Amino acid sequence: MPVRMEELENLKEMLLKMASHVERSIKDSVRALTERDSDLAEKVIRDDRIVNTYDVKIDEECVRLLALKQPMGKDLRFITTAMKITTDLERIADNAVNIAERALELNEEPLLKPYIDIPRMREVAQGMVRDSIDAFVNEDKRLAMDVIMRDDEVDDLNEMVLKELMFIMTQDPSTVSRAMKISYVSKYLERIADHATNIAEMVIYMVEGRIIRHMVPNEITQ
Amino acid sequence: MPVRMEELENLKEMLLKMASHVERSIKDSVRALTERDSDLAEKVIRDDRIVNTYDVKIDEECVRLLALKQPMGKDLRFITTAMKITTDLERIADNAVNIAERALELNEEPLLKPYIDIPRMREVAQGMVRDSIDAFVNEDKRLAMDVIMRDDEVDDLNEMVLKELMFIMTQDPSTVSRAMKISYVSKYLERIADHATNIAEMVIYMVEGRIIRHMVPNEITQ
Repeated sequence: MPVRMEELENLKEMLLKMASHVERSIKDSVRALTERDSDLAEKVIRDDRIVNTYDVKIDEECVRLLALKQPMGKDLRFITTAMKITTDLERIADNAVNIAERALELNEEPLLKPYIDIPRMREVAQGMVRDSIDAFVNEDKRLAMDVIMRDDEVDDLNEMVLKELMFIMTQDPSTVSRAMKISYVSKYLERIADHATNIAEMVIYMVEGRIIRHMVPNEITQ
Repeated sequence: MPVRMEELENLKEMLLKMASHVERSIKDSVRALTERDSDLAEKVIRDDRIVNTYDVKIDEECVRLLALKQPMGKDLRFITTAMKITTDLERIADNAVNIAERALELNEEPLLKPYIDIPRMREVAQGMVRDSIDAFVNEDKRLAMDVIMRDDEVDDLNEMVLKELMFIMTQDPSTVSRAMKISYVSKYLERIADHATNIAEMVIYMVEGRIIRHMVPNEITQ
């Protein structure tokens, strides 16, 4: 009994919905910080349950399809990849929760300085998450490669943020506690981008059957 | 055609070997830091390829078993869990590489202070990794729960390390750059423990068919 087209469509639909919740969490967690909106931070933390529910549902559906439909070839690879991707999405959401938790703390203290690079990092990282999932459901290798390339921008922004924070701390030790928290936010965003990169690598692996996961960028473009 | 016992044993064997490499990387990365041994740090970075090779091999073997043996029930769950666990192990090794990279940098600068809590964190985190994999191959729910409980100790140690580092930075701004790097090492170890916790949760999920992944600790022990 082969996997029906509509069953795969349903799986893609669930992943897209999950991803859209995760995207919302990323956006809101950073907005909670930049707009000093602690209610919004609380909401991100509360709503993590929705993402967790999706994670379990998608996992169950994949195991059901594997058990009852015994898929082969392309469908099999698609389903096992979906199982891994949902884990990444769930952990991306955990990072958004971590950002929201730091926002709650930082909102209690005076503003260290206006956030400029953090919102930019958020924008790039969130776009990477969206595109990595789009690349998966459309089996779009080109888009997946594009996601991987964007990871460098997030890494560079993270480096810049950290350097600036270290400078601020060195100049004025009273800023240490706040600066450390902001450095975590930057790290969480970098990790979100890493997860999106992992997803994109899995997509290319799935589409091409090539082992891209452990290549260096130069090898990838060949 | 059912999955043969020896095929599952072979899969377990590969995972145990991979885990043992990962454990070695964790241990060596922290030793590279505490003993200021940059050659050892380079070795950890270089040997990451071995772990990556295991990751791909195990993934391929799982897909092969799913495709050719079309396993059901317990075997199916075991194989899909193995696929997820190998991803976690690979990322644990990435964190060891990150520690080794920070060690290389810190070894170039004067020692900030002797490392006391970091080796302790390493010990707990590494034990959690080993036991989470043992819990998987032996389907040992009790051991998996024990791993989950130990995560708090690592979190507490991480908090302590960060507080101490913040105090040092506040007292002497010239320490900021080194203290930040040490704080990352502490974070990487915390993340290794998180991955082990994730593995342990998957083991319980597999053994019990219960959704433990998104419960709070109180719910778990009921």
